[in-house]
Amino acid sequence: MKQSIGPQTMLYPAPMLLVGTYDENGRANVMTCAWGGICSSDPICVTVSLREATYSYHNIVRAQAYTISVPSASLVKQVDFVGLKSGRDTDKFAALGWTATKAEHVDAPYVEECPLVLECKVVRTVELGLHTMFIGQVMDVKADAGIMREKGHLDIPALDAICFDPNNGHYYAAGAPLGKAFSIGEEL
Amino acid sequence: MKQSIGPQTMLYPAPMLLVGTYDENGRANVMTCAWGGICSSDPICVTVSLREATYSYHNIVRAQAYTISVPSASLVKQVDFVGLKSGRDTDKFAALGWTATKAEHVDAPYVEECPLVLECKVVRTVELGLHTMFIGQVMDVKADAGIMREKGHLDIPALDAICFDPNNGHYYAAGAPLGKAFSIGEEL
Repeated sequence: MKQSIGPQTMLYPAPMLLVGTYDENGRANVMTCAWGGICSSDPICVTVSLREATYSYHNIVRAQAYTISVPSASLVKQVDFVGLKSGRDTDKFAALGWTATKAEHVDAPYVEECPLVLECKVVRTVELGLHTMFIGQVMDVKADAGIMREKGHLDIPALDAICFDPNNGHYYAAGAPLGKAFSIGEEL
Repeated sequence: MKQSIGPQTMLYPAPMLLVGTYDENGRANVMTCAWGGICSSDPICVTVSLREATYSYHNIVRAQAYTISVPSASLVKQVDFVGLKSGRDTDKFAALGWTATKAEHVDAPYVEECPLVLECKVVRTVELGLHTMFIGQVMDVKADAGIMREKGHLDIPALDAICFDPNNGHYYAAGAPLGKAFSIGEEL
């Protein structure tokens, strides 16, 4: 018998993402985002949802582009710092000593220090209320050599991504392998 | 210097979710879904994206409702089984010995054996190409006593959710705590 805890923004794991944009003066900004995920395989698209109150919202509306940088757990304090500050009054890249690299396919910067990056072109904007969902077509995925294996496959334990717990506002590490999809259920 | 691996449906962690629906005969079905996430805080909404070819797609279109059951790692083989079968020719609840409980607020069933459940009413449908995104307003969240702590807070390690790696098609456990959000970055 389950207990009701009422409507909540709770789904786990939520991905801990860094959304990169340029402002109108070409200055790179980055914000944290856990309201997002994959939404389409063909075309390959992802979503990020932002409040209009954020600096990044206006940057995305103007450029119709953003990047997603996936940080490793070793960067968790820096990630939290990103979430504590606004690009309106803080140059977060400068404050953290991070490098903003211009994306190859879209007009947005990514965080060089993050091992995995998606370059996204906005193809649909959905107003939902407090948040606006920017559906981005993934124009390219880029990865550090340290998380690359053979034939474009990624080393997920080496990526060491961060999970966000929206219920408690807590960061968690990603964990150990459990098995191969479309495979381990065959024995049942 | 990052290496390009081209456009890919790759974002990590992706959540391993079970989407519950009733078919036109009132029979409960469940499918796996990793293309989803939170998209809005007010109203509280989540997304799941399904291919029109799935049995569940038509169930959602008809009922304008679905549930999301979040499985624990102990159920990973059963979860994989769900992804290997179609509700068209398999009663997955019966095959797995699972219990389909009717949601309280929407016309859809959830998996009683999963510790965390969201009841979702479709408020927007977005055709994206191969996938259709169903934006669902979260009408209620329900949790087993075993993952409840004080005051509606959830015990994330006890939930023991599954992360999906779309790049390699692999399941991973969720891992250890890293720190409190909007807090641990303050010391930088």
